[in-house]
Amino acid sequence: MFESAELGHKIDKETYDKEVPPLREALLEAQIDLAKLAKFPVIILVGGVDGAGRGETVNLLNEWMDPRFIQTHGMGEPSDEELDRPMMWRFWRELPPKGRIGVFLGSWYTWPILNRVAGRTKMADLDQSLERAKRLETMLVDEGALILKFWMHLSKEKQEKRLKLLEKDPKTRWRVTKRDWEHYKMYDKFHVVSESVMRHTSTAEAPWIIVEGFDARYRGLTVGKTILDAVRKRIDEAGKKGAEVSAPPPLPSIDKLHILKTLDLGQKIAKKDFQTELEKYQGKLALLTRSPKFRDLTVIAMFEGNDAAGKGGAIRRITGALDARQYNIVPIAAPTEEERAQPYLWRFWRHIPRRGRVTIFDRSWYGRVLVERVEGYCSKTDWMRAYSEINDFEAQLVRHRIVVVKFWLTISKDEQMRRFKEREKIGFKRFKITEEDWRNRKKWDEYEHAVCDMVDRTSTEIAPWTLVEANDKNFARIKILKTLCRQIEAAMKKKKGS
Amino acid sequence: MFESAELGHKIDKETYDKEVPPLREALLEAQIDLAKLAKFPVIILVGGVDGAGRGETVNLLNEWMDPRFIQTHGMGEPSDEELDRPMMWRFWRELPPKGRIGVFLGSWYTWPILNRVAGRTKMADLDQSLERAKRLETMLVDEGALILKFWMHLSKEKQEKRLKLLEKDPKTRWRVTKRDWEHYKMYDKFHVVSESVMRHTSTAEAPWIIVEGFDARYRGLTVGKTILDAVRKRIDEAGKKGAEVSAPPPLPSIDKLHILKTLDLGQKIAKKDFQTELEKYQGKLALLTRSPKFRDLTVIAMFEGNDAAGKGGAIRRITGALDARQYNIVPIAAPTEEERAQPYLWRFWRHIPRRGRVTIFDRSWYGRVLVERVEGYCSKTDWMRAYSEINDFEAQLVRHRIVVVKFWLTISKDEQMRRFKEREKIGFKRFKITEEDWRNRKKWDEYEHAVCDMVDRTSTEIAPWTLVEANDKNFARIKILKTLCRQIEAAMKKKKGS
Repeated sequence: MFESAELGHKIDKETYDKEVPPLREALLEAQIDLAKLAKFPVIILVGGVDGAGRGETVNLLNEWMDPRFIQTHGMGEPSDEELDRPMMWRFWRELPPKGRIGVFLGSWYTWPILNRVAGRTKMADLDQSLERAKRLETMLVDEGALILKFWMHLSKEKQEKRLKLLEKDPKTRWRVTKRDWEHYKMYDKFHVVSESVMRHTSTAEAPWIIVEGFDARYRGLTVGKTILDAVRKRIDEAGKKGAEVSAPPPLPSIDKLHILKTLDLGQKIAKKDFQTELEKYQGKLALLTRSPKFRDLTVIAMFEGNDAAGKGGAIRRITGALDARQYNIVPIAAPTEEERAQPYLWRFWRHIPRRGRVTIFDRSWYGRVLVERVEGYCSKTDWMRAYSEINDFEAQLVRHRIVVVKFWLTISKDEQMRRFKEREKIGFKRFKITEEDWRNRKKWDEYEHAVCDMVDRTSTEIAPWTLVEANDKNFARIKILKTLCRQIEAAMKKKKGS
Repeated sequence: MFESAELGHKIDKETYDKEVPPLREALLEAQIDLAKLAKFPVIILVGGVDGAGRGETVNLLNEWMDPRFIQTHGMGEPSDEELDRPMMWRFWRELPPKGRIGVFLGSWYTWPILNRVAGRTKMADLDQSLERAKRLETMLVDEGALILKFWMHLSKEKQEKRLKLLEKDPKTRWRVTKRDWEHYKMYDKFHVVSESVMRHTSTAEAPWIIVEGFDARYRGLTVGKTILDAVRKRIDEAGKKGAEVSAPPPLPSIDKLHILKTLDLGQKIAKKDFQTELEKYQGKLALLTRSPKFRDLTVIAMFEGNDAAGKGGAIRRITGALDARQYNIVPIAAPTEEERAQPYLWRFWRHIPRRGRVTIFDRSWYGRVLVERVEGYCSKTDWMRAYSEINDFEAQLVRHRIVVVKFWLTISKDEQMRRFKEREKIGFKRFKITEEDWRNRKKWDEYEHAVCDMVDRTSTEIAPWTLVEANDKNFARIKILKTLCRQIEAAMKKKKGS
């Protein structure tokens, strides 16, 4: 795997001096086109062995290119706000928007590799991390990103030589730390682990580019030319439409029996019982969320449902039991300009709360496989891949001890009509009923089909859907409160790290 | 000051039950109008003595109103990311956008009061904090915000009674902490300090509303009605245009002598000397920013100048000396949708870096008193108040040990013409010259006038302008590097807290 990067690649000064000026000009032009068209972001990961010139290469790139459109992130120790969220949050918050270049010194590979080399994790853990990284990259590429993964390599002998050279020069001496020498001692282990990482994660859409790091001129030119070539090609391709997936979209159940039909929408709760139950479960929720154990948890509750199914009312019954400082409601509307310049999951990642807090999404990331699918706001390919992307996203949340609770509120078509008409009558509820609601209603069957597919494909053991019979609002509210309490209790009982 | 809030205000249950439903409906309607019009944000501060029902009131508001459009922030201990920035950063990051309500439990008054009560600060420090708070609020109000400041009051005797009552009830016992009783012991001191705070910061545009906190029904209704009344009035007023300031805008200097004319634009540096100097100061900057002392500093360098004055080139000479992980360049373009929903300084606050880092603004918050003034993008009132708002903003940065370095790059009108023409010729520089540049050029005198006013009004001892003679690019680059190094060195010599 590293053979070609141990050949002693070298570029003489004359060649270098001749090649750099046109390369710089071409890079600048590519950057300008990239920024002007703003069709895709460029994500550059830089990894490799100590002393192989990772930082120097990145500095060189910044010198060559227009530093206003490229941003470098040194992913060192995470901050406390970052530790409070899933590991990937810190990368999501720094993702470059379309038209920009983001360079990550240190990436989602860094800690998995270091942990494995230091023996803090097992091979199986590493494999899992790599699998996740691969899936993340596939998603980013599918969302339009250009990913370039550079690995700066040195043979063991060359690493020693480089570190000694750096140490000898008073100008670079400060760069060599004790840690570098410690890492050097682990070279063989590091070599094995990183080889395995390259092997597993060099995919067709985001292959590793291994660069011999000893000769600065060779290294710089190689990285510069690779970036230029890749960006230029993607810009030229950007006009062409990508191929659609050939898999046919799922058919509706052919015997008309589907999961939503199995719900007994006639379920009710008497008003008196409702008051008792409401007090009981709100009280329980209040106690749970105020318990010291809760400080270590995070709750993300998510509401989807038919129009007028009563999401708002159900949410208010939850927040009524919470401390206002503790929760945040994110009503999902059309994405903003800044959100449109990012992968579609970005606008949900940005709202992931810190520990000890509750975030309630009023509509959610499932918009992609519901309204966007039915209304044709995204391509078939886009929504068909969204199922697994969403499963990956939720798996990351759950792995970080976030309780993910997902509610689908179902009402019958007749009940919806009754509520629409009622809303049109009542003054301050009139705003709740729009042209769009009537339009959606016409596509009832298509939405129903989309909901069934969604439940089939995203109701997982770690983040199951709770289907809520909502023809009776109070019945729905109690079921929701109960479910929420149960899931929080279950999470509290689980030990950390299990 | 607190007399009216010690009268034993009380609302009986019957009145309460009659008044709440219409109040809730009216609040909901006001919220909907607020969200639909999205003309201004509502900022609610809730302070007061322990046990006076601050948290309960906020929870009640959330219960009454649509929780999707109101967000509560418990401003407890700051995170490490917040500690790394000026105190106000954490409030800026949570400011509600237009059309939304943001509730702050704990505000910019909390720490100044607590610090004074605990004797950690002097009266003069408190006065300074209050002065800053007042100026901040004036700015927010001028930017369109509606600010409501509630102070929940209890007499000493009532505070004791409330705390005891809360302790007796098993359902509320957890709310009373040791700290509450400690604060109770300091009641008198607290009383004196907070009285002085009310007195100094009850301004016409954002007066304190003192609410007796003993009776929950009285407290809730008072706060609810006050909010309703204020929001409703502002919505109804929103159609009307505010009065313009009557002060006339500054006249250009009547004898045509002005600060820019005093610059000797003929200053040059020979190419050979430039290389020597460049290496010298880039080396110096590299050493300074890599010194351990730098970890405790932050640098914000800001570039303004005539079109084609060479900002980009000067910035590249700085970044060439820095580590790419350490800096960030923020090119200021038109504000995004999310930025337009906030006070104009918000989009700069969001880029304030953590310690040990350098942020370079390519154009800046001075846009308001330059292009926005000259092109009429904002009203005269807006740009005239911007001078002091900007001075306040920079004072906050400097107080937090941020080195603020401001450059104005001046070229002559002839030199600009030469560069425009040259740019039109060179392929990859063509993008740099736009219709807008030619249009701006026609307003040369007006811009010059605006620049002179800007320098006169915002070149302060803590954040002085450096005027750079930029007809010779290399001369400008060296002057900029030198200045930057000098200001960083000066900041390093200053002791913390001095």
